[in-house]
Amino acid sequence: MRIGIYPGSFDPVTLGHCDLIHRAANLVDHLIIAVLHNNSKQPVFSLTERVDFLSEISRGCSSIEVTAFNGLLVECARQRGAKFIIRGVRAFSDFEYEFQMALTNRKLAPELETVFLMPKEENSVISSRIVREVGMMGGDISGLVPEVLKDRIAARLRNA
Amino acid sequence: MRIGIYPGSFDPVTLGHCDLIHRAANLVDHLIIAVLHNNSKQPVFSLTERVDFLSEISRGCSSIEVTAFNGLLVECARQRGAKFIIRGVRAFSDFEYEFQMALTNRKLAPELETVFLMPKEENSVISSRIVREVGMMGGDISGLVPEVLKDRIAARLRNA
Amino acid sequence: MRIGIYPGSFDPVTLGHCDLIHRAANLVDHLIIAVLHNNSKQPVFSLTERVDFLSEISRGCSSIEVTAFNGLLVECARQRGAKFIIRGVRAFSDFEYEFQMALTNRKLAPELETVFLMPKEENSVISSRIVREVGMMGGDISGLVPEVLKDRIAARLRNA
Amino acid sequence: MRIGIYPGSFDPVTLGHCDLIHRAANLVDHLIIAVLHNNSKQPVFSLTERVDFLSEISRGCSSIEVTAFNGLLVECARQRGAKFIIRGVRAFSDFEYEFQMALTNRKLAPELETVFLMPKEENSVISSRIVREVGMMGGDISGLVPEVLKDRIAARLRNA
Amino acid sequence: MRIGIYPGSFDPVTLGHCDLIHRAANLVDHLIIAVLHNNSKQPVFSLTERVDFLSEISRGCSSIEVTAFNGLLVECARQRGAKFIIRGVRAFSDFEYEFQMALTNRKLAPELETVFLMPKEENSVISSRIVREVGMMGGDISGLVPEVLKDRIAARLRNA
Amino acid sequence: MRIGIYPGSFDPVTLGHCDLIHRAANLVDHLIIAVLHNNSKQPVFSLTERVDFLSEISRGCSSIEVTAFNGLLVECARQRGAKFIIRGVRAFSDFEYEFQMALTNRKLAPELETVFLMPKEENSVISSRIVREVGMMGGDISGLVPEVLKDRIAARLRNA
Repeated sequence: MRIGIYPGSFDPVTLGHCDLIHRAANLVDHLIIAVLHNNSKQPVFSLTERVDFLSEISRGCSSIEVTAFNGLLVECARQRGAKFIIRGVRAFSDFEYEFQMALTNRKLAPELETVFLMPKEENSVISSRIVREVGMMGGDISGLVPEVLKDRIAARLRNA
Repeated sequence: MRIGIYPGSFDPVTLGHCDLIHRAANLVDHLIIAVLHNNSKQPVFSLTERVDFLSEISRGCSSIEVTAFNGLLVECARQRGAKFIIRGVRAFSDFEYEFQMALTNRKLAPELETVFLMPKEENSVISSRIVREVGMMGGDISGLVPEVLKDRIAARLRNA
Repeated sequence: MRIGIYPGSFDPVTLGHCDLIHRAANLVDHLIIAVLHNNSKQPVFSLTERVDFLSEISRGCSSIEVTAFNGLLVECARQRGAKFIIRGVRAFSDFEYEFQMALTNRKLAPELETVFLMPKEENSVISSRIVREVGMMGGDISGLVPEVLKDRIAARLRNA
Repeated sequence: MRIGIYPGSFDPVTLGHCDLIHRAANLVDHLIIAVLHNNSKQPVFSLTERVDFLSEISRGCSSIEVTAFNGLLVECARQRGAKFIIRGVRAFSDFEYEFQMALTNRKLAPELETVFLMPKEENSVISSRIVREVGMMGGDISGLVPEVLKDRIAARLRNA
Repeated sequence: MRIGIYPGSFDPVTLGHCDLIHRAANLVDHLIIAVLHNNSKQPVFSLTERVDFLSEISRGCSSIEVTAFNGLLVECARQRGAKFIIRGVRAFSDFEYEFQMALTNRKLAPELETVFLMPKEENSVISSRIVREVGMMGGDISGLVPEVLKDRIAARLRNA
Repeated sequence: MRIGIYPGSFDPVTLGHCDLIHRAANLVDHLIIAVLHNNSKQPVFSLTERVDFLSEISRGCSSIEVTAFNGLLVECARQRGAKFIIRGVRAFSDFEYEFQMALTNRKLAPELETVFLMPKEENSVISSRIVREVGMMGGDISGLVPEVLKDRIAARLRNA
């Protein structure tokens, strides 16, 4: 069984993430969405909120699970038996950091393979940072986050 | 009448900004220089200082006005009737962020067009950050900021 | 009156070009689409075909004209009174060459300003080269070229 | 069963390609190495040679097959039931063209997913073009191509 | 005598830095490793630690000295008689910032030449930031920092 | 004695090349300008012309010599005792190809160090290709090539 892990901060989850999750779920037999707990930048959404949002949008997909992790991604992957790390390449994303992380992870755990997938063009511009900036200023985040979560994310950002 | 808006932090205004303002003023009938008020990074120069500096260098140009704004750029543009957002593309600037913002603004306000202009090569290397770093260490900022503002900016940075 | 010039090979015109033409027409009062005659790479479509295709899609827009040119773009622009050169920046286009040309044109004709516009994301991936490659192999070019020209372009490419 | 297709010119196969093939074979259940027949640039090695070289290095791997193809990659993938197109991302490779092709292939066949894998750093600099340039000038191509093919490739390039 | 200066934060020194130091020492007659004192980001290692680590790995090389500096790099270079600023270009490093700094330094001190060298591929992915992130999470930093300093750096990061 | 080699096609020499030569001559004790003979692209200027032009502009500099070479650069460098390969990094130059060549040359000859220097911003946009395109269309190449060679280069290009 091929197990993949899709790590991130998901602060909050965006339509870009959803696009990637859908693609990744086709590539592997079991997909672990791993929410980074201890990132140095203080997240706007709590770990519980971020995990809950992801659980809600992947409800009903038995091949997808959501988990939180702390520490090194490669340790988390090893403990869970994942062999593939899933990452998105966006039109204008930060390739450098992505590849630097992928090569560092390979140094730390050569048996893990980082796999890059491409979201739809219209989703490739969306980032959590953009969602936060637009939401905090009261802008409309429709089309940036999953419809089912839109109101809750918008409300939280207005009060952040 | 074509109205353009040139947004930024202008912390402080540089010769690179002046170059862009000059070019943008030729492209549109009325140019609004919009100084971002609520940027999360704490600016070194106060909003008043930043607006005053820009007003001083555009004095005498009736087609240019300087304003401060708070919140979403696209809201500011809509209220002012601007149809064009002006941005500079520098040799080594952060294309990714520029294009990501431009595409996000298009999602939020499809009727607004982002227009990219190129400063002179010798000005394309100048950024407010570089001015601040050089000035705070007591370096000479001639050729980086408008001559008429040089002494005031240098004095402020030495004491920042 | 602001006159802009949008140069290219248009071999053949794509939906990406159409997108740019539409945006450029809003930015200037008169837009000249300038089809490059003497490009060293042998085009697949004749100069007449390329001009005709562009004329057909801009029919009815009195502010747009299509012309062929030979020699230096800046000479063509000067003769026609154009002050703005319009170019597209695509997500994955060749920035280097674009900016190199823009800076060279500025050396040759400092009074001309190159203005960069961004097509819609879904159009930003389309290039004439991709259209030619897909069409010559008998692939479906719907969504890559204007609907009204699709059959003619496809037929020509199948026999190229 | 997950079927992947790894397309290319392989003119000639390099250690960079071998690296990718090895990684791709772990990701899918069946891997088709598809050698492009009709590429416009005249290849140095014949189609037969290129297919033979790849067959030789994948001998004994029952999950890998080598085939030649003509026309559109997406047609080839569809006929063979492949759902994943495998591509390498090299440190300094041409991202633009890769992503442009991936997005075009998605337009033509939305059910196909392009998956990007990263070769080892030391292999990421190797390209067929570099092998050809070095080999044609009589340079040592050890460490650039598979050891078992080195002498044959070198001999062919010296006489090319 | 050609004097070069290799500036940085070295927080902490990595194998990537060591690679560069070795190459730079071949290029100039005397190499000054200049440790930046007053960088705005609070370093994890103290200035004394960072200087000591560098001194330890360059012990025995009479043509290399380690120094701390405060203020503008170009002032430090001038005082020490250095004519060459040495910088590394890594596969995925931030070219933009590197070149922007180099061009700014040239504005401030036209007689200084910035020289870019390339580390080995396997070292090009290593950055101080990656070392800090891996070390703080208790990961193995072998192969990322000099062997002789590994235990001390690891111990410090675990307690940071 | 430090010997450097600056390779290229120089078809024709530009002000960008002159800028690099001047900088490189300060970095090494002896500089060899190596004109590539057998490049696959048919040059516009003959090997003799290209060597003559370079000899003329470096006349009087006893530390600079001009030579033609055939085959692998690293072989040429070894025969001449050069330890440093000099290359320019231009604002918008093709980093990828430059670094790919540098890493390949390191594979072939690990004892050779590739050193990157930056031309002045205003020269960084100039390429031989741009000179040829402008000159062949009868454009003014002042400011693109050395003044002393301008008329001869312009005349040759008009008749190319």
